[in-house]
Amino acid sequence: MTLKNKIEAITLKAKKASYQIAGLSTEKKNKALLKMARILNKNFSFLVKENEKDIKAGKRDKLSASIIDRLKLSPKRIKEMSMCLREVAALTDPVGKSIKTWKMPNGLKIGKIRTPFGVIAIIYESRPNVTSDSIGLCLKSGNSIILRGGSEAFYSNRAITSILIEATKDILPENVIQIIPTQDRKALDYLLKSDKYVDILIPRGGESLINYVAKNAKMPVIKHYKGVCHVFVDRYAKFDMAVEIVCNAKTQRPGVCNAIETLLVDEKIAKSFLPLMLEKLKAAGVEIRGCKKTKKVTSWIKVAKESDWYEEYLDLILAVKIVASIDEAIEHIRKYGSNHSDAIVTENNENASNFLLRVDSACVYVNASTRFTDGYQFGMGAEMGISTDKLHARGPMALEELTTYKYTVLGNGQIRE
Amino acid sequence: MTLKNKIEAITLKAKKASYQIAGLSTEKKNKALLKMARILNKNFSFLVKENEKDIKAGKRDKLSASIIDRLKLSPKRIKEMSMCLREVAALTDPVGKSIKTWKMPNGLKIGKIRTPFGVIAIIYESRPNVTSDSIGLCLKSGNSIILRGGSEAFYSNRAITSILIEATKDILPENVIQIIPTQDRKALDYLLKSDKYVDILIPRGGESLINYVAKNAKMPVIKHYKGVCHVFVDRYAKFDMAVEIVCNAKTQRPGVCNAIETLLVDEKIAKSFLPLMLEKLKAAGVEIRGCKKTKKVTSWIKVAKESDWYEEYLDLILAVKIVASIDEAIEHIRKYGSNHSDAIVTENNENASNFLLRVDSACVYVNASTRFTDGYQFGMGAEMGISTDKLHARGPMALEELTTYKYTVLGNGQIRE
Repeated sequence: MTLKNKIEAITLKAKKASYQIAGLSTEKKNKALLKMARILNKNFSFLVKENEKDIKAGKRDKLSASIIDRLKLSPKRIKEMSMCLREVAALTDPVGKSIKTWKMPNGLKIGKIRTPFGVIAIIYESRPNVTSDSIGLCLKSGNSIILRGGSEAFYSNRAITSILIEATKDILPENVIQIIPTQDRKALDYLLKSDKYVDILIPRGGESLINYVAKNAKMPVIKHYKGVCHVFVDRYAKFDMAVEIVCNAKTQRPGVCNAIETLLVDEKIAKSFLPLMLEKLKAAGVEIRGCKKTKKVTSWIKVAKESDWYEEYLDLILAVKIVASIDEAIEHIRKYGSNHSDAIVTENNENASNFLLRVDSACVYVNASTRFTDGYQFGMGAEMGISTDKLHARGPMALEELTTYKYTVLGNGQIRE
Repeated sequence: MTLKNKIEAITLKAKKASYQIAGLSTEKKNKALLKMARILNKNFSFLVKENEKDIKAGKRDKLSASIIDRLKLSPKRIKEMSMCLREVAALTDPVGKSIKTWKMPNGLKIGKIRTPFGVIAIIYESRPNVTSDSIGLCLKSGNSIILRGGSEAFYSNRAITSILIEATKDILPENVIQIIPTQDRKALDYLLKSDKYVDILIPRGGESLINYVAKNAKMPVIKHYKGVCHVFVDRYAKFDMAVEIVCNAKTQRPGVCNAIETLLVDEKIAKSFLPLMLEKLKAAGVEIRGCKKTKKVTSWIKVAKESDWYEEYLDLILAVKIVASIDEAIEHIRKYGSNHSDAIVTENNENASNFLLRVDSACVYVNASTRFTDGYQFGMGAEMGISTDKLHARGPMALEELTTYKYTVLGNGQIRE
């Protein structure tokens, strides 16, 4: 069998399995999820052993320390994966949920009902916990899943998938969970062309992976792209609140998409606010790249280049710009932002409303850190990632976002005149 | 200015206009819609004169009689376009509507709110009424629109757009409505690459246009693809109801996507039901292409080839297959259907539920004609088309489907631990 045929066979099996899982009872799905949670906790040593193969290969291939860290499966992380599966089991089943129903004058009863997509393929990098999180969410939302993790996590992903499949083989239809069984790059290319049986494709990872997938996939893609997030400190901000929010949004975990990359400050308060703010950031180890006006206020900083405003640093670096007003702040976000998460700090209601209305991002904040853009923090239990697309799902993607809908139309012989 | 620069300028202007229209009051939008409705009715002679240029060119280029018919603008059709705009004015404004709100234990107030996409480009063929329908729906849903009609309707589309823009120039922001001002095919290619400013792209038309757009567009696309729709006559069907529904679904308007292409009949009733059914269809001028079993029951029909089951005839032709059971009917629809609209005729509740659950189509019917898959027939006032995608919008697309959402998060200084 050629690799192309192998991938096609996997997608066809996933499609057939999707018809089974679509109708599976909530009870059975939860039973499978809880069994998965238990089995992960029982297999620390096997998982850690397989994971060590990836870590060893990663070190040999000189992957960065931060990637090695993301790759690592510790008992603590395995426990968290297990907990996430239990949380998904506790969430409401979205399948079959009525979105609305109505009756037409001719007697037709129309219902709009949540249904699974069918087959979801996920293409991701590094973190092995994505494997079990995605399996849990796709299973609960009634979809088949095809996983294609990064080659750097090949052994870890294969180990997680195999024990989850084995543990649930008496509960779940065959082939509901499948992993691409090779590190061959061509397998990815064949998968991207499998629009006949794969309904949607979710890429999670670095910019180049997402671009490659979006460019080459034949099926619809929900992108989890970069976050160039901003905090705008308005002239009506409480300074101490602004300092706390900016420090948190930049430094609490700088390597993630909902951390901020640029601070915008109203020029009316720049001289009184910025020295204090920037000293705090400096003390936290943050490198500052400011506009020329900022440089005048705090001479010790670096000067930002035009390209800095577009940059997703994912690091302890912050671009800082003084703007004439809220209007200039909004214009800056529109031009350089990535429509992910942006915040205003202000005590002025009019400016808050204005910002909420006019900033076109998935999540727009007033007086809170952008770091809350996250399925768990939003009360959705878990997440498949943060969509930066506008189509279908925006922001944190969880169970509801993994479903589509259909219309059911009940008549008693109606025909169209 | 090169053509490439011209298209880029149009998309940038549309983006800027989208920021204005997003915040425009419902009152102003409705005022513009009602003025548009009036101005169409006042300009019969201008519109008909411009339309005649297209008709003349179409005849010269030997377009088919059905395309010439779709192209034609009569006073009656112009009145219908006008009425559609008035109906859109009467619909609820989706912009700013709260989908849900909730509060997290840390005090964050989260709202999920409908917002416009921004810039919508529509690429369509033939029927000039799509021009004013799309303008009305995009305007009401707070989006800028870029229109690219078929070259066969160039003068008609330009005439409609120009009078609608002129009539509303004092009410609407500049450049909210734009039309690609050239028939040059390259303009389409540049538009498909304009993902910087165009948020979504909706192609409506023949299979080759949709395939071309889906393959080459860099922005998200909502496809309005073909309808290979089915009626399954179950062994528990009322025969007279089944005959009425099948005749209506096939013959009332065979050239549209929600007309049926294949009739499936349970073999338990084939001998009693089919002769009657097929005589009726024959009398209505329908050519029958049946499976071998059908041929045995009614010898005068043609025999279907494998390719017939995939075919969207858009004509007075019907494929007919006898199936062993509802399971085989569902399998046939899964294999050959296009996930558009499919119906079962039955008096058996279990079979009805089974069909509703397991047929994965945008609209699934029990005891009614598939011809009702239509925004107006579903009570949505108007429609942008029928989405055959599963992402974002499925089935009839109207105002709500032309919006996305954003999360607004209100805090009082919350940071993430």
